Amino acid sequence: MAGFFTFEGPDGSGKTTQMELLRRALEEEGHEVVALREPGGTVLGDAIRRLVLDTPHLDLHHRTETLLFNAARAQIVARVIRPALRAGKTVLCDRYADSTLAYQGFGHGQALEALEPLIQYATGGLEPTLRILLDLPPDRALARKEVRNRLDAHNLDFHRAVHRGYQVLMQRDPESWLRVDASRPAPEIHAEIRQAIGRILSRSEGVCG
Amino acid sequence: MAGFFTFEGPDGSGKTTQMELLRRALEEEGHEVVALREPGGTVLGDAIRRLVLDTPHLDLHHRTETLLFNAARAQIVARVIRPALRAGKTVLCDRYADSTLAYQGFGHGQALEALEPLIQYATGGLEPTLRILLDLPPDRALARKEVRNRLDAHNLDFHRAVHRGYQVLMQRDPESWLRVDASRPAPEIHAEIRQAIGRILSRSEGVCG
Repeated sequence: MAGFFTFEGPDGSGKTTQMELLRRALEEEGHEVVALREPGGTVLGDAIRRLVLDTPHLDLHHRTETLLFNAARAQIVARVIRPALRAGKTVLCDRYADSTLAYQGFGHGQALEALEPLIQYATGGLEPTLRILLDLPPDRALARKEVRNRLDAHNLDFHRAVHRGYQVLMQRDPESWLRVDASRPAPEIHAEIRQAIGRILSRSEGVCG
Repeated sequence: MAGFFTFEGPDGSGKTTQMELLRRALEEEGHEVVALREPGGTVLGDAIRRLVLDTPHLDLHHRTETLLFNAARAQIVARVIRPALRAGKTVLCDRYADSTLAYQGFGHGQALEALEPLIQYATGGLEPTLRILLDLPPDRALARKEVRNRLDAHNLDFHRAVHRGYQVLMQRDPESWLRVDASRPAPEIHAEIRQAIGRILSRSEGVCG
């Protein structure tokens, strides 16, 4: 049995770097790895990503944005993630359903009860084996990056609400999360993630083999 | 108070023609009319329409398609339909939420219970004043048109399921529907629609004025 590992946290927390380090480490050990990012990873997902991130005059309503992200998610789950998991591959994903809850829910103030049915519909109930939160105080995360696109152009209050949201999500289901302090050097963070993932993969190999 | 009137029924049933006839008639009587089609009517909706209708290699999962249509719907409701209704305009829309229930629900076999929360989320609960069903037996509708795009390329069984779906939706809430026999000449159909809409608009003017 392979695993499905998602990276969560603010932009600027090092998700891309850590996912790449983990991908290489797992591949060196002989795992087949599929590394993805949301939205993206399919023809449709990439089209939605371009639309949402690079078209400032779109004037997207929050509900529209949420539905678009979940459309991209439905497609990547059905066409990429589920087939990869069935083929025994390990799937890494830069953002997944928890980003909708953290950003559209806690960030934009939409009720979780309204978002959860959409996520359930889009994913068909597929949950990550482990969610890795690259945790960074909002002011630190903002300082690390440029305002690159529309989605980044929120104020500090928004990012504080998102940060608080991640903490609430973790408290709801602590077993399914690994929180790592993302203010440390990348190799240290990687070692911590690698260790946790290794435990899970060896455990599941033990069960299945 | 203006009204929000949606046109439902198969492609080939004359929705576009009837909507245009109604638009002209209402404008001649001094109504301000906004005529729309789904998906479309916004920058985002048009982009989604192009994506879904003209990109055969997209390989969209049914859930993805449903979420995309509802993203376009959320946008047109928030940015066009609600503002127009608030400004006292009459809104005509070629397809709306009932198309999701008829096509994605009855046609593709998705449970209505899974679709209804998405529609509720996308529309914020905005319901049409009247739904006009241009009813045509599935074999007649198919004979009237070419297979113009991917969405048309379903077989007769699919269109029969959609047709049956519309009948079920009408039976659930008959007061909110006007069923017209779309096999008759366009002017006859128009006269019937015009009369029903006229009754509703004069009634609401009486109430508000």
